[in-house]
Amino acid sequence: MQLLKDKIRRDAKIVENRIIKVDNFLNHQLDITLFNEIGKEFKRRFANKEVTKIVTLETSGIAIASITAQYFNNVPVVFAKKHAGLNMNQDVYEAKVYSYTKDQEYTIKISKSFLCPSDKVLIIDDFLASGSALMGLYSLLSQSGAEISGVGIVIEKTFQEGRKLIEEKGLQLESLAIIESFKDGQVVFR
Amino acid sequence: MQLLKDKIRRDAKIVENRIIKVDNFLNHQLDITLFNEIGKEFKRRFANKEVTKIVTLETSGIAIASITAQYFNNVPVVFAKKHAGLNMNQDVYEAKVYSYTKDQEYTIKISKSFLCPSDKVLIIDDFLASGSALMGLYSLLSQSGAEISGVGIVIEKTFQEGRKLIEEKGLQLESLAIIESFKDGQVVFR
Repeated sequence: MQLLKDKIRRDAKIVENRIIKVDNFLNHQLDITLFNEIGKEFKRRFANKEVTKIVTLETSGIAIASITAQYFNNVPVVFAKKHAGLNMNQDVYEAKVYSYTKDQEYTIKISKSFLCPSDKVLIIDDFLASGSALMGLYSLLSQSGAEISGVGIVIEKTFQEGRKLIEEKGLQLESLAIIESFKDGQVVFR
Repeated sequence: MQLLKDKIRRDAKIVENRIIKVDNFLNHQLDITLFNEIGKEFKRRFANKEVTKIVTLETSGIAIASITAQYFNNVPVVFAKKHAGLNMNQDVYEAKVYSYTKDQEYTIKISKSFLCPSDKVLIIDDFLASGSALMGLYSLLSQSGAEISGVGIVIEKTFQEGRKLIEEKGLQLESLAIIESFKDGQVVFR
């Protein structure tokens, strides 16, 4: 997706040829115009798939998933919780996820009320790198019996193993910007 | 907002005449059609206010703020972080917030890059009760010098002290559903 790649080249910060920071448009300050273009592009890529629900993960996936849902007939969005409150239903699907950016293991949870075997789920997330978060979502969805229509990612670091893990599950994976490497503080797209 | 009140009466769960659970449409599963109506209603109520940015708080405010921004010329959304990653910029505004639903004190943070004195900020959040989260956001915004155009809340529990705290600051507060009390497991709206 050219618009997104241009935005990354212009506004992302590359730290130590290793970390990409997109907090000025993707995960702290949110560029709602860009998110709409992202939503349209996901619809184009999954145009032939039935989608009854969009599932994402707290926190950074929520806004992208919500705007994207508007291009899929306003299907409900369900986000897996990392930080469940005391009031959360105890009847949940859960899975372990390791976060590299927080150096911490989480239990992610989705209430059993919001996933069922007749659901056809599009998974949306901001980043794909190690694939740990995505495999956690895959586990929750498998427990529920829901069908997975596909996986839509905004930015993929394709030099990590996430893509391999998802493709091994036989899922359609669409990443809107695929980073092959970092070189001299710049992004090299595939 | 009648549509919202109807939705609450139909789908919210009241626990122990004290807690209102709206996780099936507002803060776990998200009703995107409803969120669009909420966004339109906030625009109607703040039609005469200049808004250059919408600010909310991780997690439940994010989707509502993002959909609402579409009715304010797609202004950027900035959310205060409760769970900052290792990559977060250290140059932040911060404030303490106490969460009753998690029985825990947080430090909320917004990067200084995303707020400036020329900003006119609409604050959006899902709930207003004790006002602790809102006072935290007020503190962050005051530190930045940004002007606050108003405060938009989806559900207010008006029997707690949040409204008083916000009105004492001289801010326009608009809550789309105002709960006066709970009676026999039902909501009593104002």
